[in-house]
Amino acid sequence: MTSDCTEDDVRKMDIGDPLAAVREKFHLPAGVVYLDGNSLGAAPKAAFEELNAAAKSEWADQLIRSWQGAGWWALPETLGDLLAGLAGAQQGEIVVCDTTSSNLYKALHAALSLRPKRPVILTEAEGFPTDTYIAEGVKSVRENIELRLGSLDDNNIDELLDDSIAAVLINHIDYRTGAVRNMKQITKRIHAAGAIAIWDLCHSAGVYPIDLNGANVDFAAGCTYKYLNGGPGSPAYIFAATRHHGELSQPLSGWWGHMEPFAFEPTYTAAKGIRRLLCGTQPILSMRALKAGLDIYADLDMVDVRQKSMSLTNLFINLIDQECQGHDVEVASPRDARARGSQVSLSHANGAPIIAALTARGVIGGFRAPNVMRFGFAPLYLSHHDVWRAVAHLKEVLVSEEWRQDRFNIPGHIS
Amino acid sequence: MTSDCTEDDVRKMDIGDPLAAVREKFHLPAGVVYLDGNSLGAAPKAAFEELNAAAKSEWADQLIRSWQGAGWWALPETLGDLLAGLAGAQQGEIVVCDTTSSNLYKALHAALSLRPKRPVILTEAEGFPTDTYIAEGVKSVRENIELRLGSLDDNNIDELLDDSIAAVLINHIDYRTGAVRNMKQITKRIHAAGAIAIWDLCHSAGVYPIDLNGANVDFAAGCTYKYLNGGPGSPAYIFAATRHHGELSQPLSGWWGHMEPFAFEPTYTAAKGIRRLLCGTQPILSMRALKAGLDIYADLDMVDVRQKSMSLTNLFINLIDQECQGHDVEVASPRDARARGSQVSLSHANGAPIIAALTARGVIGGFRAPNVMRFGFAPLYLSHHDVWRAVAHLKEVLVSEEWRQDRFNIPGHIS
Repeated sequence: MTSDCTEDDVRKMDIGDPLAAVREKFHLPAGVVYLDGNSLGAAPKAAFEELNAAAKSEWADQLIRSWQGAGWWALPETLGDLLAGLAGAQQGEIVVCDTTSSNLYKALHAALSLRPKRPVILTEAEGFPTDTYIAEGVKSVRENIELRLGSLDDNNIDELLDDSIAAVLINHIDYRTGAVRNMKQITKRIHAAGAIAIWDLCHSAGVYPIDLNGANVDFAAGCTYKYLNGGPGSPAYIFAATRHHGELSQPLSGWWGHMEPFAFEPTYTAAKGIRRLLCGTQPILSMRALKAGLDIYADLDMVDVRQKSMSLTNLFINLIDQECQGHDVEVASPRDARARGSQVSLSHANGAPIIAALTARGVIGGFRAPNVMRFGFAPLYLSHHDVWRAVAHLKEVLVSEEWRQDRFNIPGHIS
Repeated sequence: MTSDCTEDDVRKMDIGDPLAAVREKFHLPAGVVYLDGNSLGAAPKAAFEELNAAAKSEWADQLIRSWQGAGWWALPETLGDLLAGLAGAQQGEIVVCDTTSSNLYKALHAALSLRPKRPVILTEAEGFPTDTYIAEGVKSVRENIELRLGSLDDNNIDELLDDSIAAVLINHIDYRTGAVRNMKQITKRIHAAGAIAIWDLCHSAGVYPIDLNGANVDFAAGCTYKYLNGGPGSPAYIFAATRHHGELSQPLSGWWGHMEPFAFEPTYTAAKGIRRLLCGTQPILSMRALKAGLDIYADLDMVDVRQKSMSLTNLFINLIDQECQGHDVEVASPRDARARGSQVSLSHANGAPIIAALTARGVIGGFRAPNVMRFGFAPLYLSHHDVWRAVAHLKEVLVSEEWRQDRFNIPGHIS
């Protein structure tokens, strides 16, 4: 912006926001500007009703009968089908279950089994750490597997690919910078090298349009407690393209993935479709809260969601430029909104106490060592005026240097 | 019993029951006799409060701050320590997480890594099927592993053990018959053969005194939604004896098991204690309902619980003998209470429609193919008079042959 952006300008942006009414579907605590929805999403009001119905009517009153009568048994697929609409998947290609880490574990083993002569897993040197940890876990039990780590952005992935690579595990959006990877282009290159493409969607699902089938992705996984607003530790999900369902195997072969789970057969036979990616009994109460989060998307157009996400992050960067000059704050995310997810990372040598000082003011963001302040902009429940307030507080924290107080120099919180 | 047991006699048993008041801690639907607590336990009233606090105060109001502020991050250990008291484990030897199936997967890999020169996993030919399925999953990814299946009761385990066996996976209580295995004796024999003992506690935890350390058990796992009343699909748990914590490795090496989960280190270093058995982010809402189930045990003596369990199952068998003669009902569980868990299985060629007819009358039991009617007797919330009513209904179903109606000849429900 060439001329200064005013609070009035910002209020006008909210008036024109087609998603403004969606905010009412969330419980947001008074006095808080919540910019950590990329870590734990806000609570949909309907989640309380879902939990109440699941606990009181279904569990307490109907007891065991709810496994069929209330659709508990089918919830991994029911929720997976809701997610499919957000992710460019078909019905029956996603199940909600377990954790992102265990789902990536299944996907990596499945990929290695589909490429039995190739020994290498390629993943990101600076991706979300659990991805690498899980790849190490796979390597620890499987003979002759190697890990290769690299920087897998659009420009240089080719030089890391060769015919030894069985699978590439890559994040759709970088958790530190918010940089978006070109899913279609990268998957094409992975396939050209004969490898299987596994995408981690943790930081894109719910805020960025995803077209898994359009990009010809093989497997994907992600969590639901960030922008999908499923609640603390709500179960994760896994996608497998239909073309793989026939030969797909994974070693977490528990009874929920069995073709006839109630026949109590002595040996394992995998279910025919996506259920073969299930393992054990899933946490129904947590899944029901998640259902409330996913239901909100039924009325939304992801184009509007993405548009608002870009509008919020653009405004934040513009206001940082306008208001926070001279305080050693650097924008660490791509400045081009098209290359950025729904977060903006700022670097500052004293990021940790600055985040703590902001939190004390009710502006909640996250911190990642060594110096990254992460601000997530959840387009479903944030307004442009929230962004204005956040930057106003950040400016005050920087100008006053209140972050130097001892009480803000504390160990980081989970985010 | 030599002379007939009357309804009056049964009411007297309830008057002397030291656990009678515990029933008030549960929500039990009117008109139901619930004999499927071995599949899904009843709802503790406190679970509704736990869920409400976790969803409204902690998630909705406190948001990300609850990971530390409300103790979410520590819940796997907090709940594990509550369980330790029921299982003869020390604090720090159990974590609540994931599913029984995935925890058995971890335990089997851990055991194989502790016995690297031994290729065989020994498990039960007729154990809970998911145990075998998971052993197959382990074998599918690990080179040169063999499965050996057998009948692992106290009398014949020796003939299946030799120095090729790395790990033995065995159920504490048989899910079909309710037969109890001698944990101490069998573990001693497993150790004498140089193998690792892994116990599945699904059908004993909460109703049978367990002394994991007294029996020198290596690993154990189980679910919490049966007799522990954690709610549908509440997370499972895994026990590892302290002596193994140092060298213990397992391949589901997600970030929750990392020594420094918030340092975002590029490579995996396992946490020092029991947390190295964690993998990904856990479902907090489901865990909080479980907390209500576990808290009930704080005031209970497992000797009383076991005593009542035996009293209920003895009464049931006695009343079956007294009331149901001549209807081809056989007691399939051990008749000696000391050899039996908290369930009684009856066999009948038409078990499935009989269970359906009982359910229609509000007497809820379970069915297992081909012909086993399973009745679980949860000593925390059942009375002796419930047992009386159950047998009275069963007798009526048998005498009237109402189970022959078409509406009762339906596919079995989950139980």
